[in-house]
Amino acid sequence: MKLTILKEHLNESIQHVSKAISNKTTIPILSGIKIDADSRGLTLTASDTDISIQSFIPKEKNELSIIQMERPGSVVLSSKFFVEIVRKLPAQQVEIEVKDHFQTIIRSGSSEIQLVGLDPEEYPTLPSIEENRRIQLPSDLLKTMIKQTSFAVSTNESTPILTGILWTIADQKLKFTACDRHRLGSRETPVEVDANFQLNNISISGKTLNELSKILPDQNTLIDVIFAENQVLFKLSSILFYTRILDGTYPDTSKLIPQSYQTEMVINAQQLAEAIDRAYLLSREEKTNIVKLIMREDHTIEVSSSSSELGKVTEQLEVQSLTGELLRISFNSKYMLDALKVMDSELIRIGFTGAMQPIIIRPEEASTLLQLILPYRTTN
Amino acid sequence: MKLTILKEHLNESIQHVSKAISNKTTIPILSGIKIDADSRGLTLTASDTDISIQSFIPKEKNELSIIQMERPGSVVLSSKFFVEIVRKLPAQQVEIEVKDHFQTIIRSGSSEIQLVGLDPEEYPTLPSIEENRRIQLPSDLLKTMIKQTSFAVSTNESTPILTGILWTIADQKLKFTACDRHRLGSRETPVEVDANFQLNNISISGKTLNELSKILPDQNTLIDVIFAENQVLFKLSSILFYTRILDGTYPDTSKLIPQSYQTEMVINAQQLAEAIDRAYLLSREEKTNIVKLIMREDHTIEVSSSSSELGKVTEQLEVQSLTGELLRISFNSKYMLDALKVMDSELIRIGFTGAMQPIIIRPEEASTLLQLILPYRTTN
Repeated sequence: MKLTILKEHLNESIQHVSKAISNKTTIPILSGIKIDADSRGLTLTASDTDISIQSFIPKEKNELSIIQMERPGSVVLSSKFFVEIVRKLPAQQVEIEVKDHFQTIIRSGSSEIQLVGLDPEEYPTLPSIEENRRIQLPSDLLKTMIKQTSFAVSTNESTPILTGILWTIADQKLKFTACDRHRLGSRETPVEVDANFQLNNISISGKTLNELSKILPDQNTLIDVIFAENQVLFKLSSILFYTRILDGTYPDTSKLIPQSYQTEMVINAQQLAEAIDRAYLLSREEKTNIVKLIMREDHTIEVSSSSSELGKVTEQLEVQSLTGELLRISFNSKYMLDALKVMDSELIRIGFTGAMQPIIIRPEEASTLLQLILPYRTTN
Repeated sequence: MKLTILKEHLNESIQHVSKAISNKTTIPILSGIKIDADSRGLTLTASDTDISIQSFIPKEKNELSIIQMERPGSVVLSSKFFVEIVRKLPAQQVEIEVKDHFQTIIRSGSSEIQLVGLDPEEYPTLPSIEENRRIQLPSDLLKTMIKQTSFAVSTNESTPILTGILWTIADQKLKFTACDRHRLGSRETPVEVDANFQLNNISISGKTLNELSKILPDQNTLIDVIFAENQVLFKLSSILFYTRILDGTYPDTSKLIPQSYQTEMVINAQQLAEAIDRAYLLSREEKTNIVKLIMREDHTIEVSSSSSELGKVTEQLEVQSLTGELLRISFNSKYMLDALKVMDSELIRIGFTGAMQPIIIRPEEASTLLQLILPYRTTN
């Protein structure tokens, strides 16, 4: 292999694929990045077996020559040092030459770097994926849906299935659900699929989807999402992002969500978030995060938290509307802040069905977004 | 105590004094901020016994009323929660009222915060300092001098005196010296003092001076520095910053610095820094940081580092001038990068007196700044 490539393109691809490299890998070759050069361009691959990312750099793009290919070939280079050195090379042009025993020479300006290369034949092959189950999603929508649900996945590795976001499709609607047994976040969107297209029990690691988010463009470019037996493939313009489907059966969470409310409140989202944030500061010092909400007849609510050692925070807030039974309810202020943060609506509607029943937070207008948090049982 | 104060002024003072609060304090009252209100204004004090910071907020400033004082008094408030809550209060005005048993009420907009206060009588008094040994330094110069030397202090707590920057005054010149036994940074500046004013063995913690730096204004405002028996006091316009002088005798480092050189090289600082940075990336992976410099007859140098496992980085650089014996010398690339970073000069002059003797780095023009690093003994 011998070629010359524009540094910025090589660097961008390396930054993308390196997200798949884990420091904890026990398979030495997976600490490397595989580089394949052929007549079309350069393909970079990295994998930690759970995620695999492939990035393609074409020889030319918009009539700009990116790669001068002298001799095709392949090599695996240890990512540890390679990722950083390419970013810091002095010149715009980078020459890569692979010699005997995969010894690799990188030249740029007055720098020459010799790297010990590994045999690309030893690199695992990526899963081959049949394209029969495929949907298309706008990139920015996918990013928003991940942001609105991923914080609610479980961080407890003893129930791996709950560390993922559940993808379901029924009635031409795609739904994301994340649930850590104390709270739930869900978001729905219509998708263009056949009326009988169904998707069940596809749970994809929340961490992985957050990594994907960093690569997804902010525009509404369409992303292909392909579902195979135990893999999902996200196809961006020049990037393939493979991820494993989590093992296990995702619990049925539909019964958690009440169909009607005893009490309903419409309130300004930002004012509520700021008041709860101040109460959170104190509740966090207590390591409980407990905040109490008391509803009053005069259409105000009181949000408070207290600590015998430090003191008490009390916040008075007006609500837009308050119907039904007046409640006193306690909850985890951090969970409420997380839910309020993704609301994207000035006014929100909070539904209650009793002091020990789930609290439902939604934008005021009928919406595809729903957040649920379970209240705390408190003594008063 | 009862008063109303503009939030931004209270917050700024809290941010300043809170730099003196240590999470590790074993004296409970020192985890608090002392607040004293009198007819002149509000004084905040925080201390970890090594550092004490006092900030004063006047009742008015430039005809703007900052404080409405209803009743003077004092209280100590636990800083943990107080520092953050004041920043997040909803309104511009903050009311503080201290009731019986130092119970403190903070009101702002719709928020009411009750804090458990502590008895200010239990708070240690600040050292009283005689003003007979005093110098004045422009704030920006003091910041620069700290930046140019503090990175070279020792981080080894077994020789506390070396964790400080040594301040000496002789012949109307102030000199900062920092030395961790492997490298040395020094910077000198003229000061307006009596010809016989001397300062010896004043070592002030590098960490503390970096904290001071964050408070120092970027302008050339004059700062009073007062030297007492075992304390130094920095007087800013509304802040008093007290710090302890480190115990012990600072070693004589003057003999480390060679009076003449066998080899002298003038080189572009940025080009050398970038080349060493690339070599550093590899040397860091090897956990040695060793970089080798080889001088050639054609007025070029080669900078290289190598690792049997990863490979080798080789950099060719032209030098502006090279006189004396051609050397091969190895050194810690991280130390060299630290020294180059504070050079503030396009061209620098590096002096050598042999492969095992200290390397001296200075700006090309005669300068008050000097960096020294000891070379590594290597096998080839």
